[in-house]
Amino acid sequence: AEVKKIAVIAGDGIGPEVVNEAIKVLKRVEELYGYRFEFEHGLFGGIAIDEKGTPLPDETLQMCRSADAVLLGAVGGPKWDNNPKELRPETGLLGIRKELGLFSNLRPAVVFDCLIEASTLKREVLEGTDLIVVRELTGGIYFGDKFRREGPGGEEAVDTSVYSVMEVERIVRQAFEIARKRRKKLASVDKANVLETSRLWRETVNRIAPEYPDVELEHILVDNCAMQLLRRPASFDVIVTENMFGDILSDEAAMLTGSIGMLASASLGEGSFGLYEPVHGSAPDIAGKGIANPLATILSAAMMLRYTFNYADAADSIEKAVQDVLNAGHRTADIAVDSSKAISTEQMGSLVAEHM
Amino acid sequence: AEVKKIAVIAGDGIGPEVVNEAIKVLKRVEELYGYRFEFEHGLFGGIAIDEKGTPLPDETLQMCRSADAVLLGAVGGPKWDNNPKELRPETGLLGIRKELGLFSNLRPAVVFDCLIEASTLKREVLEGTDLIVVRELTGGIYFGDKFRREGPGGEEAVDTSVYSVMEVERIVRQAFEIARKRRKKLASVDKANVLETSRLWRETVNRIAPEYPDVELEHILVDNCAMQLLRRPASFDVIVTENMFGDILSDEAAMLTGSIGMLASASLGEGSFGLYEPVHGSAPDIAGKGIANPLATILSAAMMLRYTFNYADAADSIEKAVQDVLNAGHRTADIAVDSSKAISTEQMGSLVAEHM
Ligand SMILES: CC(C)[C@H](C(=O)O)[C@@H](O)C(=O)O
Ligand SMILES: CC(C)[C@H](C(=O)O)[C@@H](O)C(=O)O
Repeated sequence: AEVKKIAVIAGDGIGPEVVNEAIKVLKRVEELYGYRFEFEHGLFGGIAIDEKGTPLPDETLQMCRSADAVLLGAVGGPKWDNNPKELRPETGLLGIRKELGLFSNLRPAVVFDCLIEASTLKREVLEGTDLIVVRELTGGIYFGDKFRREGPGGEEAVDTSVYSVMEVERIVRQAFEIARKRRKKLASVDKANVLETSRLWRETVNRIAPEYPDVELEHILVDNCAMQLLRRPASFDVIVTENMFGDILSDEAAMLTGSIGMLASASLGEGSFGLYEPVHGSAPDIAGKGIANPLATILSAAMMLRYTFNYADAADSIEKAVQDVLNAGHRTADIAVDSSKAISTEQMGSLVAEHM
Repeated sequence: AEVKKIAVIAGDGIGPEVVNEAIKVLKRVEELYGYRFEFEHGLFGGIAIDEKGTPLPDETLQMCRSADAVLLGAVGGPKWDNNPKELRPETGLLGIRKELGLFSNLRPAVVFDCLIEASTLKREVLEGTDLIVVRELTGGIYFGDKFRREGPGGEEAVDTSVYSVMEVERIVRQAFEIARKRRKKLASVDKANVLETSRLWRETVNRIAPEYPDVELEHILVDNCAMQLLRRPASFDVIVTENMFGDILSDEAAMLTGSIGMLASASLGEGSFGLYEPVHGSAPDIAGKGIANPLATILSAAMMLRYTFNYADAADSIEKAVQDVLNAGHRTADIAVDSSKAISTEQMGSLVAEHM
């Protein structure tokens, strides 16, 4: 088989540990399915600040550009939190999204039945929850002009949110396509009663909708969506929204499931290229101890196989192995009921590889 | 006693019904405590659009300006949803906030123990939840420049978010004062890792904080706050944030409690003037049926007595009466377990008045 190049940027905190287990599982995919991967490693985030003086070194960016997909661990930590903007890990994250044109962030929030008790929501409300937030990732208030100026009320700060029809069209079309392959329901989230960008968003959604008559479309205001996610999470299928709202709602949706250590994400651009990373952060408090949960990163690798490489067989096999390992009662400390029985990061990775 | 002028803008849907019961309770306050109120009624929202061609007629605004406080029912409904911007009820709401200088929106989210089962959250997570969101209400992306323009990606829409030091200072100071009268914990919510307005916000909070050494301050990113509200709602006391984040988080917090029909709000400016309204909407589907829950509006009237008039005795008495009526098992349809036993809007108002 053709060799696929995977750029690995393990990052900070538990990043390297969890990424190692995802690589272990990808190597098992090579053995079982005959696919071929080549891994290249680069510096990114806090460690890149320390070693190269910038969170996103040029060589890392070049490495990602020449790869077929990127596997990211996690970035950040208290060490860099008070750095000036250019020397903060988040700046690298925003930079890599923009530079690689990753305009779409897919954030599935799935409830694992055997972990449902970990949620703060009641079982009967949560049961059957399987939604995906499609967040626009390179526009809006994240990337518009930002500055300070003098005003009548003293110093003022300004942020600008901009969306073009083109930017809305491409993310909305992608969301419709994803809905078509799922339960055929799309909720478009905006604040059209207040924002001009939201009115453009809603007009664009309505213009595209007739191309997808098989998908049931609902417009929902962002404040109401924050409520409905709590009230009827299982009723959502695909949620599409702009960058800032998506940041908030995708994290709310993740927390609903109770298993944030289990959630994967994909950031996609045009074509099949994508960056894959766990939803959880770098967890500096447990870094280096070998106890982090690698499943979110392993499931991110499965998303890579599915979305970038089109290896659905291998992706299915990983996802099923994760289920089987959980059903067999294996738990890392973060999801263990009895922490004395918790297994290590490495053990969890090996168990998934064995169950494939 | 001095006569206090209350401007009543009942609005649309169930607005008039629930406002009537709040007035009934305020009249009972006059009898019991010797306070004196004068009620003046004005058109606002959809009904004002129908009758006057604008959601916020000048005479309504004048009436509010010459009053000591405003009692608002609810505005909006499907009838006006597709109107152009100037003819939409929300435009009246944004207009009245700006015109009356109501820069602070207080949104308590309290769990009523006897209604705790109505929440989708587990009892043990929710127990003891008693937080208040202090939302900035006249700045940020709601009121900054909004426009369309041509760009390289076709038509573009632009929204601008602006905050001055003065705007942040006054709301943050108010939040610190409120925290001081409660459990002395303040969470300031921003997105300082991305937004310039948030960086100004955080700097300003940090500059003011030493004036309140007795209040424990926490900075929390908006995406994380959306998660922590779900994970540990009872740990929050006062949450202060900018307009757009406050819109989303205050509704999320409201829904947590499971009793959105019970939640009151106050919008305050400089001095003691305030506008008081229930958190729930106009509920057009049940309007005119006499079955709406008036408790949120009654509790909003209690907030008016507390914050604008400083009649803590009467406010306490209303709040206690509401508790007693609920503890005695009386329920309107929205909170009834057995809907055949539900009482009417009027009955609920009378019961509260009797229990005072
Ligand atoms: C770290 C931060 C800039 C980032 C964002 O807001 O996009 C993070 O919260 C995320 O969601 O990936
Ligand atoms: C109707 C709308 C403009 C308003 C807002 O976003 O402020 C509402 O959601 C609220 O919270 O009072």
